[in-house]
Amino acid sequence: MDFSYNDKVKRLQNELKLFMSEVIFPNEKKFQQQLDPIDRFSKIPPVMEEMKRQAKQAGLWNLFLPDAKEGAGLTNVEYAPLCEMMGRSAIAPEVFNCNAPDTGNMEVLVRYGTEEQKEKWLKPLLNGEIRSAFSMTEPEVASSDATNVQISIKRIGDEYVINGTKWWSSGAGDPRCRILIVMGKTDPFAEKHKQQSMLLVPIDSTGVEVKRMLPVFGYDDAPHGHAEIKFNQVRVPATNLLLGEGRGFEIAQGRLGPGRIHHCMRTIGAAERALELMCERVVGRVAFGKPLANQGVVREWIAESRIEIEQARLLTLKAAAMMDTVGNKVAKKEIAMIKVIAPRMALRVIDRTIQAFGAEGVSDDLPLAAMFAGIRTLRIADGPDEVHLESVAKQELKPYLNNG
Amino acid sequence: MDFSYNDKVKRLQNELKLFMSEVIFPNEKKFQQQLDPIDRFSKIPPVMEEMKRQAKQAGLWNLFLPDAKEGAGLTNVEYAPLCEMMGRSAIAPEVFNCNAPDTGNMEVLVRYGTEEQKEKWLKPLLNGEIRSAFSMTEPEVASSDATNVQISIKRIGDEYVINGTKWWSSGAGDPRCRILIVMGKTDPFAEKHKQQSMLLVPIDSTGVEVKRMLPVFGYDDAPHGHAEIKFNQVRVPATNLLLGEGRGFEIAQGRLGPGRIHHCMRTIGAAERALELMCERVVGRVAFGKPLANQGVVREWIAESRIEIEQARLLTLKAAAMMDTVGNKVAKKEIAMIKVIAPRMALRVIDRTIQAFGAEGVSDDLPLAAMFAGIRTLRIADGPDEVHLESVAKQELKPYLNNG
Amino acid sequence: MDFSYNDKVKRLQNELKLFMSEVIFPNEKKFQQQLDPIDRFSKIPPVMEEMKRQAKQAGLWNLFLPDAKEGAGLTNVEYAPLCEMMGRSAIAPEVFNCNAPDTGNMEVLVRYGTEEQKEKWLKPLLNGEIRSAFSMTEPEVASSDATNVQISIKRIGDEYVINGTKWWSSGAGDPRCRILIVMGKTDPFAEKHKQQSMLLVPIDSTGVEVKRMLPVFGYDDAPHGHAEIKFNQVRVPATNLLLGEGRGFEIAQGRLGPGRIHHCMRTIGAAERALELMCERVVGRVAFGKPLANQGVVREWIAESRIEIEQARLLTLKAAAMMDTVGNKVAKKEIAMIKVIAPRMALRVIDRTIQAFGAEGVSDDLPLAAMFAGIRTLRIADGPDEVHLESVAKQELKPYLNNG
Amino acid sequence: MDFSYNDKVKRLQNELKLFMSEVIFPNEKKFQQQLDPIDRFSKIPPVMEEMKRQAKQAGLWNLFLPDAKEGAGLTNVEYAPLCEMMGRSAIAPEVFNCNAPDTGNMEVLVRYGTEEQKEKWLKPLLNGEIRSAFSMTEPEVASSDATNVQISIKRIGDEYVINGTKWWSSGAGDPRCRILIVMGKTDPFAEKHKQQSMLLVPIDSTGVEVKRMLPVFGYDDAPHGHAEIKFNQVRVPATNLLLGEGRGFEIAQGRLGPGRIHHCMRTIGAAERALELMCERVVGRVAFGKPLANQGVVREWIAESRIEIEQARLLTLKAAAMMDTVGNKVAKKEIAMIKVIAPRMALRVIDRTIQAFGAEGVSDDLPLAAMFAGIRTLRIADGPDEVHLESVAKQELKPYLNNG
Repeated sequence: MDFSYNDKVKRLQNELKLFMSEVIFPNEKKFQQQLDPIDRFSKIPPVMEEMKRQAKQAGLWNLFLPDAKEGAGLTNVEYAPLCEMMGRSAIAPEVFNCNAPDTGNMEVLVRYGTEEQKEKWLKPLLNGEIRSAFSMTEPEVASSDATNVQISIKRIGDEYVINGTKWWSSGAGDPRCRILIVMGKTDPFAEKHKQQSMLLVPIDSTGVEVKRMLPVFGYDDAPHGHAEIKFNQVRVPATNLLLGEGRGFEIAQGRLGPGRIHHCMRTIGAAERALELMCERVVGRVAFGKPLANQGVVREWIAESRIEIEQARLLTLKAAAMMDTVGNKVAKKEIAMIKVIAPRMALRVIDRTIQAFGAEGVSDDLPLAAMFAGIRTLRIADGPDEVHLESVAKQELKPYLNNG
Repeated sequence: MDFSYNDKVKRLQNELKLFMSEVIFPNEKKFQQQLDPIDRFSKIPPVMEEMKRQAKQAGLWNLFLPDAKEGAGLTNVEYAPLCEMMGRSAIAPEVFNCNAPDTGNMEVLVRYGTEEQKEKWLKPLLNGEIRSAFSMTEPEVASSDATNVQISIKRIGDEYVINGTKWWSSGAGDPRCRILIVMGKTDPFAEKHKQQSMLLVPIDSTGVEVKRMLPVFGYDDAPHGHAEIKFNQVRVPATNLLLGEGRGFEIAQGRLGPGRIHHCMRTIGAAERALELMCERVVGRVAFGKPLANQGVVREWIAESRIEIEQARLLTLKAAAMMDTVGNKVAKKEIAMIKVIAPRMALRVIDRTIQAFGAEGVSDDLPLAAMFAGIRTLRIADGPDEVHLESVAKQELKPYLNNG
Repeated sequence: MDFSYNDKVKRLQNELKLFMSEVIFPNEKKFQQQLDPIDRFSKIPPVMEEMKRQAKQAGLWNLFLPDAKEGAGLTNVEYAPLCEMMGRSAIAPEVFNCNAPDTGNMEVLVRYGTEEQKEKWLKPLLNGEIRSAFSMTEPEVASSDATNVQISIKRIGDEYVINGTKWWSSGAGDPRCRILIVMGKTDPFAEKHKQQSMLLVPIDSTGVEVKRMLPVFGYDDAPHGHAEIKFNQVRVPATNLLLGEGRGFEIAQGRLGPGRIHHCMRTIGAAERALELMCERVVGRVAFGKPLANQGVVREWIAESRIEIEQARLLTLKAAAMMDTVGNKVAKKEIAMIKVIAPRMALRVIDRTIQAFGAEGVSDDLPLAAMFAGIRTLRIADGPDEVHLESVAKQELKPYLNNG
Repeated sequence: MDFSYNDKVKRLQNELKLFMSEVIFPNEKKFQQQLDPIDRFSKIPPVMEEMKRQAKQAGLWNLFLPDAKEGAGLTNVEYAPLCEMMGRSAIAPEVFNCNAPDTGNMEVLVRYGTEEQKEKWLKPLLNGEIRSAFSMTEPEVASSDATNVQISIKRIGDEYVINGTKWWSSGAGDPRCRILIVMGKTDPFAEKHKQQSMLLVPIDSTGVEVKRMLPVFGYDDAPHGHAEIKFNQVRVPATNLLLGEGRGFEIAQGRLGPGRIHHCMRTIGAAERALELMCERVVGRVAFGKPLANQGVVREWIAESRIEIEQARLLTLKAAAMMDTVGNKVAKKEIAMIKVIAPRMALRVIDRTIQAFGAEGVSDDLPLAAMFAGIRTLRIADGPDEVHLESVAKQELKPYLNNG
């Protein structure tokens, strides 16, 4: 297992680092200011499209895509440190066309899409012209258990008819969002993991009603947003089906592995930025006659943060390396482990940094509170920590049960 | 040390409980909805004034005030459980005219105000007609050390002239806010704890500029708000001085004791509500074929939460009882201890509850995320945890140093 | 709920404190030295009997016994602070005839013993002439579930015949130990909680074989000891039965309440002593040019320790007060809570103190390592933490389930 | 940075694994039983020499030594997983002649010893014929600061004369121990890090008095032992000096790096064994009607343990790889980090395993309590955690201070 970064990766890392400090960090506040104050979901801050143009020009585009033709052709272990770099700013991933859920949706289309589906949806997504959302979570059932999905998808003639409600469809607030990948139930009587299917649903289809944007700890995450969507007799052509009826669960599983590496590495990047901010703060801030950096307790925060970040990064890289070499299935335990540790670790680091800043830390003069809120959701999204710990335990206990 | 609730307290507790469930909880959402969508700080939701009227009528008014003439004449240990009850809803304290920072400001006026000051500011505050703010924290210096205050107050003739910037002046966003208690430096050359004074500054004075409202984890806490205020050659009559020049630190100290009991008890109330919500959730929610309440891990969360709440409440009651019997000075260590433990405990309980709810927990369909954000600031406000732990250690070590 | 210590308690507390510092602390090392180096279970250090004589003379004897005729007639809340005082030294409880398991055994005899049983066993126990053990735990079954007890007790004519193995019979190593209270199964076909009975078994009965003494983290706890005992066709007169056949579980339950208060308060006493030792150490020890007491991290240890001790003591006193006023049954939740928190808290405090002492802390030049080992067993004895947390959760969830 | 195990390592790992399960584990109890019951430091259990003979024969000997002529010539990253394997049993390292402090002492002799010193001490050490100790820690001063060493070493003619007291000289209890490496002060007036020297002192020199063996949580760790040694006018030839006067600190520093990797990897091995024992236990043990392995809380212990072990191992391997590639100096921060995390992690894992076993866990029927005690000392030995966290913080803050 080799985690060292090769020359290509190091080069891209440096280019990204430079781009972050020259283009992205200076524009973080401007992005917020350019949002429409009345309807924050009505327009995209122009600075975003400008930054995207620059990123594309710099060749820092679609780095996430392992497909060498459409994307950068990087392995998971190669992309991981680049993804970490992007995680340092909430607005960075989109600049490089590497933001969730579009990345996962693009991967699904690359892998399972028909030529027609690719032409219509994948191409503009890869170009950053349109955005997409992924409609999985439902208000009425525990989404920790993916087989719980209740929304109904019925084949009627050449069409599928969708009824039900989804929420936490992230990205559906974006005025450029054109397409939803919806997971629903096509056959309630099939075997448990064959009841679900995935469907491409244009957001402007009749009957699709975006009811509201859900806030996260007071943040609306505009213009991206987390939407509650009602599907009322929505009809789409049967050709919008992905892969085949009853194969929704299979697609969902395949989608998860790389997505988790991305989330974890971005989270680690956020933690690194928080630690940097903490270090800058404490060397400059004086209380009770000496810099905070001279306080033993503060120094311990810094040491513990460094230790936690290092460990989380190594385990995430190991999981990425395993995915590249032995595959997602064998790496299942490692993927579950990083899903738990990365957000937990980052929340601790960010919380300490907030404490080092005092009141400023909870405001939006710094990115800390927003980071905290966003990363807190990762302990819930794609299954809560408890489900993943349970999965680790199950695999750990397996050899002992077989012997028993 | 007797912590049992006497009959008067039990009666008030029951009345409050009933009022909470009949009047306050049903109106929590309405309060939010009645805020002006464009300028959330421009008006008070009418339901608030209506609830206040009802509370006053029910005799549940100014319970915080130990002064028997103006207020309810309750001791700290008597008021504590009532304050806990109010802590269950973010909008409740104001309904009973028991919300910070008005309570602390009213106490200061009762104790140190001249007759004229009382007539002008205390009376309408006690009636709930106007609101007030407390301007202490400054952006440039560590407020953990109160002697750091930098804003300048200069006596010129019969007036004081104020210059400088404050932030986190909570309550200054309220359109009914009329008066600020401002702590500033009158004499930079005096002894360290005699340099500061407190001044009553009408918010409509020339030169008072409310620059912006600071968010807390994405919450603007409208219409209350946390303001950044610039004081530019602001002039107030010399009679607006509180107690005397150089006595600002002394007033600040006296103000803290009861305020901390209030904050802690409200925090414990919030934790109790979170635990209730968690219990309700887990008995009703099914995942992987059984109610969450049957999961061992979830049951452990509930048990640990109960244990932590019980312990925090007992220590807070002990601190309150000590303040009533042996005074704030002797109770200093206990007051420092509860300042640290109550928010820390509540954040853990609320975090577990959020986890039990999943995505809904971070949204505003439940009070959890807002509670979390608000209580997180209590680990910073009036000195960060670290300052209070330091104070506990200092007092603990004192006898060993004297012997040494 | 009144936790204040009345005058009687304060007087006894002072007397105990004096006795501890004048008699017990100075003899802790001598007690260890007087053990026989070859067979550490063969004799009682003479200094123990001498200290007992002094304690008896001073009226500090059998304070644990709520029975006013035989003992001190103290309530739980009155005895609690005295018990805490004794917990400061591992050898203290026996000096005052207040050590487990003799206290629990004496209570059982007071409550359920026949006159003959009392004359034969209770009297010499109250006089401190003999010692006893309690044989409950068995190697083959999970003792967290008391109904698991497997040892067989069969009535044959006028005798009971006992067969099976017990371990962790604490106190059975003592050369003065004369009597075992053995819990076993008299009727495997009865209702689950009526299968067990308790029997008085003289340790010198034919067929009682003390096989070995079990160490605790390397400590043999001589001369007290934790014995593995084999019962091989042991016969005792039927009159040795306690209370009645099938009532063993009932006795076990009644025995637990006060015992838990005792264990918890002693544990809190041990934590207090550790904190004292930590404070003494850190003011005197210099590292990297300044006393440890000047290190922020060390000061945080001290503050956190004080906070944890205070909270644990208050909750234990509340549980004691509830037992005195509303009874063991209603206090069930509180008793379960303190069973979990007191040892956990003390282990943290002691661990920090060890860290403050460095290598000396793990040796026997200080009482810390032995305290740690002993208290670690309390997270297991009488049911592991997890069983008690489960019990707290169960009671907490009850109202929600009834409504459901 | 490549952490994968190469073929040589994998082969040795397998051989060690087999040897452990066939030779070492079955003899753990016998080793304890063969100690002399009266004077546990008087003889070496014959089974030890027998196992050593077998290990030597199997070529599993001196694997720790990077020197290819005298030892196995393995890099740190190659030896690490082998060292982990040995850490699974307290008696294993010596069997392979890879136990502390002999390994460190041998390295010192290889690197800095004269030919004469090597012939006399290194050779028999490499052959496992004699044992050695390292005398660094002193009772009177904080050993966290190595410059504190007080023992006096004076040159008088052709000899050095040593006076003072050391303790925690581990290994000095062994009847085969022949040589001590003593660190003392040769020049109290030299520059702070040049005052100390290291000297080879035969344990049978006149004036060397081994006063007692210090226990660790009740364990005497016989026949190895942790000795308090008084040096009373001890004279050794000047040729016994290592490297040069005033170079003691330098040798101590060089000695630390690999030693820390060894300690950490052995600790990780102990944690792995504890996790295995926990898994075995919980699948087989039934409480309240189901196997412990079905309890959610227990499953969480297992998952958390796996996560913590994985992370600690990766960071330790990274530190080892850095030592091999960029050297101890650059790896300083990583070495400090693993010194803190490995023992902390293992203590948590072992504590959970003890809890899963109940009372048996604290006895010597299982290796858990002894492991816990031994590993607890690693949070103190070679500097307490706090010193290493401080070192991490210092290095982390360095770039920010330079900019400031």
